[in-house]
Amino acid sequence: MRQEDQLPIQTLLPMQARPRRCALAALALFAACAGAGSVRAQPENGPEKGAEKPAESGALARLVGSAPFKAARQALADDHERFVAEIITLTEIPAPPFKEEARARAFAAMLKASGLADVTMDSLGNVVARRPGRDPSLPPLIVAAHLDTVFPEGTDVGVRREGTRLLAPGIGDDTRGLAQLLALVRAMDRARISTRRDLVFVGNVGEEGAGDLRGMRHLFASHPAARNAAGFITIDGSGAARITTTGVGSRRFRLTFAGPGGHSFEKFGIVNPVAALARTVSGLYAVPVPAEPRTTFSASIIGGGTSVNAIPAKAFVEIDIRSAAPAEIARIDRALHDIAQAAVDEENAARSTAMGRITVSFETIGDRPAGTTLPSSALARHAHDMAVLMGLQPAFIAQSTDANVPMSLGIPAIAIGTGGRGGGEHTLGEWIDVSKDEAVQGMAVVLGTILASAD
Amino acid sequence: MRQEDQLPIQTLLPMQARPRRCALAALALFAACAGAGSVRAQPENGPEKGAEKPAESGALARLVGSAPFKAARQALADDHERFVAEIITLTEIPAPPFKEEARARAFAAMLKASGLADVTMDSLGNVVARRPGRDPSLPPLIVAAHLDTVFPEGTDVGVRREGTRLLAPGIGDDTRGLAQLLALVRAMDRARISTRRDLVFVGNVGEEGAGDLRGMRHLFASHPAARNAAGFITIDGSGAARITTTGVGSRRFRLTFAGPGGHSFEKFGIVNPVAALARTVSGLYAVPVPAEPRTTFSASIIGGGTSVNAIPAKAFVEIDIRSAAPAEIARIDRALHDIAQAAVDEENAARSTAMGRITVSFETIGDRPAGTTLPSSALARHAHDMAVLMGLQPAFIAQSTDANVPMSLGIPAIAIGTGGRGGGEHTLGEWIDVSKDEAVQGMAVVLGTILASAD
Repeated sequence: MRQEDQLPIQTLLPMQARPRRCALAALALFAACAGAGSVRAQPENGPEKGAEKPAESGALARLVGSAPFKAARQALADDHERFVAEIITLTEIPAPPFKEEARARAFAAMLKASGLADVTMDSLGNVVARRPGRDPSLPPLIVAAHLDTVFPEGTDVGVRREGTRLLAPGIGDDTRGLAQLLALVRAMDRARISTRRDLVFVGNVGEEGAGDLRGMRHLFASHPAARNAAGFITIDGSGAARITTTGVGSRRFRLTFAGPGGHSFEKFGIVNPVAALARTVSGLYAVPVPAEPRTTFSASIIGGGTSVNAIPAKAFVEIDIRSAAPAEIARIDRALHDIAQAAVDEENAARSTAMGRITVSFETIGDRPAGTTLPSSALARHAHDMAVLMGLQPAFIAQSTDANVPMSLGIPAIAIGTGGRGGGEHTLGEWIDVSKDEAVQGMAVVLGTILASAD
Repeated sequence: MRQEDQLPIQTLLPMQARPRRCALAALALFAACAGAGSVRAQPENGPEKGAEKPAESGALARLVGSAPFKAARQALADDHERFVAEIITLTEIPAPPFKEEARARAFAAMLKASGLADVTMDSLGNVVARRPGRDPSLPPLIVAAHLDTVFPEGTDVGVRREGTRLLAPGIGDDTRGLAQLLALVRAMDRARISTRRDLVFVGNVGEEGAGDLRGMRHLFASHPAARNAAGFITIDGSGAARITTTGVGSRRFRLTFAGPGGHSFEKFGIVNPVAALARTVSGLYAVPVPAEPRTTFSASIIGGGTSVNAIPAKAFVEIDIRSAAPAEIARIDRALHDIAQAAVDEENAARSTAMGRITVSFETIGDRPAGTTLPSSALARHAHDMAVLMGLQPAFIAQSTDANVPMSLGIPAIAIGTGGRGGGEHTLGEWIDVSKDEAVQGMAVVLGTILASAD
């Protein structure tokens, strides 16, 4: 998950400009509040209480009250120490970007040890395991967590324990999610739960940063069951009440402006790539963007030049463009190309090109597809209402996660937190809290969402 | 010497816009050509031939033809091996910027060993030696070379010899100049030459880069003889026919734009320091400059930002401003300050400052005074005509050297090459050629200039 990409969806929808989606969200919230009326709101009340008081959300409330669901929850509670041990084991196998293989092999073995027979690794390194459903003709439900962390090779990934708090780089994002897949598989088996649809459990590569969602892209481009999926859930990030239904897409470029360069005094008068870069940034910052769908750009990292007494031969700027709407990303992308080319042309016209002209090249350094799952969709409602039934206060949020890929393909997809508290993602101080009740509560939300959506 | 700052003065004076100075230069060139008519132009003809054919420049030609001058030249030739050995000795004592002390102490000892009794080191580390003249009431002539190199501590400064070629970082810029001061002192002693004025020999610190001419500034600010000097010669750079009469001044700033920074998606809409920087660069590049006195600016090194998905909290640009005219430097400096402040104000007006405002700070990272010595001045003519008499083809050039400081104080000052070929200054591949005839020829130009100017 891109922790830094989290944003409550309310922020994205100004009061005066909420379209139909808002009405649907309001309906869902109404249903949720109705359901939540009879449960106690404090997470520390524990999951059992909420489960004992059936909500009005019908089938979901019946599911939560059912004996198999209760048995599965009990299994999660009984399995807690193994769950924690597996978080630690997986965390301590480094999985830097593009180097997830050791962790992938361990995870595949653990899936088998948890009872799944059909476990494979695809050519990119994604671990894919199938838990057969009752009707193999139905499209499957995919449940994923990502193998990679943001931390480079050599990072100390030893886990430190302080009471119920575990500290280590990558432990929450997203190693806890991987361990949760294992725990869910075992709990369903222990409770003898079967689903109508196949469940496809995935531990995928390449979610973070430069990984650019390559694991998920590959899965949906190559795996027949994935292309055909009925739904997709990725378990990513802390908490269990933040449901990502807006997949913020992004396109990122490094623009490199090149020119002849030369001595700042002797060659004064020749074109300067920094001047073209400056004109490009100024031009970009004059481009209008809509508030909804929220669309943004940023000139972020800049660099260039080697000496204060030299006209640079090269300068670059990195630009980040984001939106939940692919068309908006494409529009800003085109505008940026036009602006940069115009800036280069103007610089070549304004100063001498006797020693050479300014050129600009675009390198794509990130491209995450945008997409949306309506909060009113069955999948989003299941997650939302399950959180309410478990005594949590859910929120629909906008993020960039592995769910962006299926969303962009029109497949209902959400990201949901791993349950429990955590923080410091993408920092060496990353931590999670594995208090048992809170952990089981969070996993129960995911379990209920899976069971409701796979039936 | 700032090798990269060399520029033939012709480049600075477009044909259509040559003022009085050009007429004077033309006169000097005419005299030079007349004098050169009877000498052979090839350096490899050796200095003797040129010296045997008196030029029409009167007193200087008589000086060159005099027995003491001939004896001093012969002494330089006889002393050649010691000269080369001293170049090597001094080169192999590292003298990084701000760490010239070891070399300074060795140089002071070598000045004493070469016959000077009055050798001191000032509080900044400049070595100052006096060779008394016949009339101590007259202002002295200062002859300098700089102790410092551009190379950092730890650079391998071992000298490699390939025939007459010596290779080592700093060997030409300006260690050969230091050794030349020693050789000139001994040659004058051997030829029993006295001058009317005191000669003050200086091995100074802080010529290069961030040294920012601090050695020379200190000398002229604190040394009574320097403030009162009749003239100043610094021996710096290769060749003996390039005479620096235009001291290009420079002022260099690092502008740092700071703001709140934040997540590129979540905080979109806040002020961005890169946008203010871009506007500043665009504004600077619209400032008109005169062709004469040549005045330049350059946006050189840029940097800022930490992550493509973050609005930067900081960005900087380094700006180099140069001119032979102090007023032009001051004008561009003021314009830059105004432009940067306006850019910051515009950015603060254009976007949200709820999280903080953009600010800009100026750090001065270089400030070299500008100045000019007229090519028609006695000192410049002496150097010019001596070069012609020695069979060389002199050129007046514009550079930034230690001579900038006395020039800026109104003291006649030039920089002149150390004689002999060389190249690769400021690179690890720096080299000089110490062919004897060429070396003596070059030193004779300086010797004649000193003798003519100190009398």
